[in-house]
Amino acid sequence: MLAITAAVSRQSALADQYAEVRQRSVALAAPLSAEDAMVQSMPDASPAKWHLAHTTWFFERFVLGADAAYQPVQPDWHFLFNSYYETIGPAHARPQRGLLSRPSLDQVQAYRRRIDSSVLALLRGGALDDAILDHLQLGLQHEQQHQELLLTDIKHALWSNPLQPAYRDDLPIPATGTAGPLQWIESGEHIAWIGAPAWPDDAGFAYDNESPRHRVLVPAHALASRPVSNAEYAAFIADGGYRQVQLWMSEGWALCQAGQWQHPLYWDDALQREYTLGGWRVLDPHAPVCHISYFEADAYARWAGARLPTEFEWEAAASADAEDGSPADDGRLHPQAGQGSSGSPRLHGEVWEWTSSAYGPYPGFRTFPGSLGEYNGKFMCGQWILRGGSCATPRGHVRASYRNFFDPSARWQFSGVRLARDIQ
Amino acid sequence: MLAITAAVSRQSALADQYAEVRQRSVALAAPLSAEDAMVQSMPDASPAKWHLAHTTWFFERFVLGADAAYQPVQPDWHFLFNSYYETIGPAHARPQRGLLSRPSLDQVQAYRRRIDSSVLALLRGGALDDAILDHLQLGLQHEQQHQELLLTDIKHALWSNPLQPAYRDDLPIPATGTAGPLQWIESGEHIAWIGAPAWPDDAGFAYDNESPRHRVLVPAHALASRPVSNAEYAAFIADGGYRQVQLWMSEGWALCQAGQWQHPLYWDDALQREYTLGGWRVLDPHAPVCHISYFEADAYARWAGARLPTEFEWEAAASADAEDGSPADDGRLHPQAGQGSSGSPRLHGEVWEWTSSAYGPYPGFRTFPGSLGEYNGKFMCGQWILRGGSCATPRGHVRASYRNFFDPSARWQFSGVRLARDIQ
Amino acid sequence: MLAITAAVSRQSALADQYAEVRQRSVALAAPLSAEDAMVQSMPDASPAKWHLAHTTWFFERFVLGADAAYQPVQPDWHFLFNSYYETIGPAHARPQRGLLSRPSLDQVQAYRRRIDSSVLALLRGGALDDAILDHLQLGLQHEQQHQELLLTDIKHALWSNPLQPAYRDDLPIPATGTAGPLQWIESGEHIAWIGAPAWPDDAGFAYDNESPRHRVLVPAHALASRPVSNAEYAAFIADGGYRQVQLWMSEGWALCQAGQWQHPLYWDDALQREYTLGGWRVLDPHAPVCHISYFEADAYARWAGARLPTEFEWEAAASADAEDGSPADDGRLHPQAGQGSSGSPRLHGEVWEWTSSAYGPYPGFRTFPGSLGEYNGKFMCGQWILRGGSCATPRGHVRASYRNFFDPSARWQFSGVRLARDIQ
Amino acid sequence: MLAITAAVSRQSALADQYAEVRQRSVALAAPLSAEDAMVQSMPDASPAKWHLAHTTWFFERFVLGADAAYQPVQPDWHFLFNSYYETIGPAHARPQRGLLSRPSLDQVQAYRRRIDSSVLALLRGGALDDAILDHLQLGLQHEQQHQELLLTDIKHALWSNPLQPAYRDDLPIPATGTAGPLQWIESGEHIAWIGAPAWPDDAGFAYDNESPRHRVLVPAHALASRPVSNAEYAAFIADGGYRQVQLWMSEGWALCQAGQWQHPLYWDDALQREYTLGGWRVLDPHAPVCHISYFEADAYARWAGARLPTEFEWEAAASADAEDGSPADDGRLHPQAGQGSSGSPRLHGEVWEWTSSAYGPYPGFRTFPGSLGEYNGKFMCGQWILRGGSCATPRGHVRASYRNFFDPSARWQFSGVRLARDIQ
Repeated sequence: MLAITAAVSRQSALADQYAEVRQRSVALAAPLSAEDAMVQSMPDASPAKWHLAHTTWFFERFVLGADAAYQPVQPDWHFLFNSYYETIGPAHARPQRGLLSRPSLDQVQAYRRRIDSSVLALLRGGALDDAILDHLQLGLQHEQQHQELLLTDIKHALWSNPLQPAYRDDLPIPATGTAGPLQWIESGEHIAWIGAPAWPDDAGFAYDNESPRHRVLVPAHALASRPVSNAEYAAFIADGGYRQVQLWMSEGWALCQAGQWQHPLYWDDALQREYTLGGWRVLDPHAPVCHISYFEADAYARWAGARLPTEFEWEAAASADAEDGSPADDGRLHPQAGQGSSGSPRLHGEVWEWTSSAYGPYPGFRTFPGSLGEYNGKFMCGQWILRGGSCATPRGHVRASYRNFFDPSARWQFSGVRLARDIQ
Repeated sequence: MLAITAAVSRQSALADQYAEVRQRSVALAAPLSAEDAMVQSMPDASPAKWHLAHTTWFFERFVLGADAAYQPVQPDWHFLFNSYYETIGPAHARPQRGLLSRPSLDQVQAYRRRIDSSVLALLRGGALDDAILDHLQLGLQHEQQHQELLLTDIKHALWSNPLQPAYRDDLPIPATGTAGPLQWIESGEHIAWIGAPAWPDDAGFAYDNESPRHRVLVPAHALASRPVSNAEYAAFIADGGYRQVQLWMSEGWALCQAGQWQHPLYWDDALQREYTLGGWRVLDPHAPVCHISYFEADAYARWAGARLPTEFEWEAAASADAEDGSPADDGRLHPQAGQGSSGSPRLHGEVWEWTSSAYGPYPGFRTFPGSLGEYNGKFMCGQWILRGGSCATPRGHVRASYRNFFDPSARWQFSGVRLARDIQ
Repeated sequence: MLAITAAVSRQSALADQYAEVRQRSVALAAPLSAEDAMVQSMPDASPAKWHLAHTTWFFERFVLGADAAYQPVQPDWHFLFNSYYETIGPAHARPQRGLLSRPSLDQVQAYRRRIDSSVLALLRGGALDDAILDHLQLGLQHEQQHQELLLTDIKHALWSNPLQPAYRDDLPIPATGTAGPLQWIESGEHIAWIGAPAWPDDAGFAYDNESPRHRVLVPAHALASRPVSNAEYAAFIADGGYRQVQLWMSEGWALCQAGQWQHPLYWDDALQREYTLGGWRVLDPHAPVCHISYFEADAYARWAGARLPTEFEWEAAASADAEDGSPADDGRLHPQAGQGSSGSPRLHGEVWEWTSSAYGPYPGFRTFPGSLGEYNGKFMCGQWILRGGSCATPRGHVRASYRNFFDPSARWQFSGVRLARDIQ
Repeated sequence: MLAITAAVSRQSALADQYAEVRQRSVALAAPLSAEDAMVQSMPDASPAKWHLAHTTWFFERFVLGADAAYQPVQPDWHFLFNSYYETIGPAHARPQRGLLSRPSLDQVQAYRRRIDSSVLALLRGGALDDAILDHLQLGLQHEQQHQELLLTDIKHALWSNPLQPAYRDDLPIPATGTAGPLQWIESGEHIAWIGAPAWPDDAGFAYDNESPRHRVLVPAHALASRPVSNAEYAAFIADGGYRQVQLWMSEGWALCQAGQWQHPLYWDDALQREYTLGGWRVLDPHAPVCHISYFEADAYARWAGARLPTEFEWEAAASADAEDGSPADDGRLHPQAGQGSSGSPRLHGEVWEWTSSAYGPYPGFRTFPGSLGEYNGKFMCGQWILRGGSCATPRGHVRASYRNFFDPSARWQFSGVRLARDIQ
């Protein structure tokens, strides 16, 4: 009886979350014209319209489509809005997503409403199997990931237009704070529990790549009390950081030379201003530096006589910390100073923090079953782990065990750097 | 007094033409959503919105801008809508035109209206210098060229979408005709006058690349009475035309292999249907074959025991022919059978006809003065001449001396082939 | 007095090793014509002549050149034979190494003799500083690495020639053995000491990337008693391993498709024979599979219901094992069956074994000082660890802590796979 | 009886020529080591060894192989040394020619001797069919073409080596002359006979692309009395010729920017010296400028207020001129001043002269029969005509009707420029 109640309660809670999460995507796209929503400025990014459609397709395919009798709204959209689930069929080539003038943004919005209506009807009907609810819950997490990507992708898209318009002119300006002196939080060698119990066996959601929860020997080290600030990063630039080969990984140096990198992605060449979702603004020297690649983070750390933390050091320090605020919800969409006073890495930490850890499986790792096994596992080569969440990460979408991952050359995410160092 | 009258009359006539030509561009874009108008499906093509803006910029820059006191509507649009006039400043990279969600289609339409208003006010005011009127007249010809490009570019764009929607669902179906037996029109060796007198010294408009009018010795030859039909081209395919290396230019064979060419660009693999601006349709065996590259035209000719005509042979045959109809205006936007009954190449000949002539300067060639000298001259290397006009060419935009030119690999234009052969 | 004796003894021992190692390189190049020694069949490989010259340059630059008064033999060769030490000056572009007809192989051999003469004179003279001896010792290890590369590079070069000649026709045929049943060696969770003490502070040589020696928590797991055999790998192929997307990392699948991979690099399409340094031979089903990429190793493991071991699991199992034979010295230069009877991974294990570990720094890692800091550290991103040594690894060049690393797409090394799996 | 005598005489004369031409190739390769003879510095160039082998293969395949019973010396070399005759089978990829360490240079030389022996035995035997003799004669012309390519390719190869050695240290220094004032030779409009009668019907050799001999209307024009000199070209550079976009074809400007062209290929950046087959030398201001692309020739002409001549203007002026000297045979292998005093373009004119004519078929053009039809015809798209012969062209290999052709971007041939201009 209790179990039934719990199931009902879960179903009901998911219905509420569904409405809320789905609405937030629509709200994020609201400032965009149909034309804005179609731009794909590089192969790694997707148009906002595609994000809106793909997240919807995910529910159609994995929730509604679990009923074998389900008839897709538009069967030929399956090819368009499948991202990379090759076990369920071929997909439209990623670099071509910007060519899709059809379906229109209006059609995609109507598609969203229709699927929402069907999903909510399902949720408000009889009790659903756990497997369906699991797919639904995963779909909500998935959509939250795409919400952050929608923001980083549209930022890149609008910046790529020579007119460089703002995403929104009415974004609140981040509070002016001070970075505070950088402190080193020391930690002796110890065995830490890393990762999360495997969901859905465990009630708390976690991606497959976060489990099994396992033990790791964390060496003695010190972790910086806050991320590197713009002022600190500017000192690295002023000292010739982008011209000193010995500070760089070999591959990073090649990219730096070929791309003529001289500063973080969205800074101006005078190092005075940065492009934000609210348009061009004066750089805040106290705010965390942002939009740097792994290679820049690593070069900075070497210049500073330090190194990047491992993802285990990061998680071991963060795990005691309750979620303490949700910057994305205050609508700034840009990092502000003052983070990290507590001395341990914060979730929603203004910027994602590059770690020195390559993205790989935990001991005993198992992918989600079926086609959803393609969600995370097949990218476990060549990607690097970022931890912490950013000012653009949705509320409720971070946890200490969360493993974000990107190519080490990626710069268009809200990615920054926290230092670590060895101690004896 | 007569001269003044003539000038007034020219200015007045240009005002009428201006209104008409400008309106036609708007009409061509009318079936397109803002999203459709933004697609750039390959570097060689441009979005419809860009065509609308660039043609407007041309008038703003070269007509209104001739007044040194003129203030541009949006100074930062100059960079966006300059195509390739490097002597007046840098331009936005061509392959990036599809990223321009801003300015919006609405803004571009408003820009058109504003410039139209200014230009028409100018034309309806006092008598203008000939130089201004010349630029205006050139601007109208320029816009007509872009009207055809708008159609070929949007055809490619919509076809590139896996949904392959029609540009318009209401296009009239081309009349069913018969190709008629192919006849050979013989011509003995003779000296022909080729080209047009230099405009604007001569009243009749012609591009700089069409002059000077000069004498060419045309050898004895025979010219086919009509272009090659779909049925004839299908016989070439059936005979293994795309698999016989000896039929092809070396460069063409490499493209054919790399691109896995097996038929004209817009045919289906079953060789039964073709994609048109009105959507997918059954192939008409009598209609001229269309959307083939120079290399395919040349291979076909070799297979048929013939060759491509030179542009001089073409012009010598065509020059006696008055303009005889204007297919584009009847709204089909697709070639139909029955062309060429007259025995000489028709202007508005359903398809542009590849010639064997590389695009080069005529003896005594001079570019237009100033920055407009970049219009044609700098492309006189590596391009091939097409003659005749197509079903998508605007009324009034063709003449016997007209020299269209494209890269020999180009397939997305309404390009076909007429045979020639040597005679003793 | 003892210290002096030890120093003298070290210097004397190094002189002996120097002569031996240097001679072995010459012997490896002996079967090659000057033309063979010049081939560079891909950017990742180098010509044999270049290996001979670069290893010599290393001694000239870092041993003889430690004397500020030293005059280089050919100052303009510095640019040619510097590999990637950017802190000591620019270097000839790696993909262009195959263009160097000059200096000739004869000149390079003369260069070797001249530098050998100088180095040996130095070693047989007065007692040298430890720093010089350290550079010399590093130079010998460096040359041994290039000896294996010379073999793998020339194998690829000769195979790339349509005639596919053998490197040597007189190579001994590997003994026919049996792979033996695959056994799983279990190990409980434990803390292992990983890595080597930092050289040269510690007497035993190790690269900087092998230290510091540190503690790692190794989870409970089972390790296969031997590498995967050709017969086992053939079963994977027969089961469609190269066509099942769900077995592959995303990046690996893309490479597999683009490169049309269907079997290990040097197998024939009939899966019956393989190209070896001794020419084409029938595949031995019992011998370890070889010349596969990380992606193939990983896909195989997934197909087999297992996974790749971490480098820590590998080292923990191997460290108790004394060096037990030196296949390279028996001159086979091809893996043979029978390895691994002992149940722990063997050094000189016939094939390098891909691990699941990305190449990164150990906690407390410090590069070698000065320009030699570029030796290993700057590649710690995007490379994957292989362990164990191969049939082409020189005697004395392996140890349990040795970390070989290559791009996960690399196939031209003697690289194979050993399975691991999780246990509860 | 007379016919028989003529045939015998032809066969005998060809035997003499054969010996002489074949020997000259060997002599040209004599200064090269086996390593030098293997370098391929760019896809457009071939190794000297490949030239030696391919020209031999040509005789083996088209002369000896005409006997169906003939057994090839090495059947698997057919694939290696076929260049582009696709109708007789696949060929080794051109950009991979530099990987062929086998067969060795010694083997290729032995192959030459063996084929020479067979061919000479054939020639000294009974009377051969005309068809065989035609193939032999064509093979000799073919080998002469490759002699010039061998020189230009090895020049590029040695220059690409950072050591930049000379091909030969003992080349005679070109005589110091003066360029003489540039004069304009005027010519009124007239009909000229262009081209050569079709060989072998006509006794005089000509390639298929030189016929039929036909009539062309040449417009009134003036032709410069000599090629442009280094001093004149230096003035173009000093005036910013490489930085003025309006002087350039669009495609040429893109290449100029991408390749950072600032001067002819082999000049130093100080514009004082040039790399020659005899090594680096001081530029002779009076000598013809050399190693420029079509785009540079064209830009120079525009800067000079002139244009390039058509190939018809060139041939009409040259045809009256007997062959007057054979620079290549005096062994300079570098252009010298003083050419062109006669006022009409000279054959062996020190440098090949770019014309404004795209390479295309003459009216009535027929390729050689059979596979030899691939010799010239399939390149008649995208190449530009050069006329005149160079200091590296073998004696006996030029004539007024000779049509050399290269990609307009090519710079590694001995290519220069002669001006023309229109007259009323």
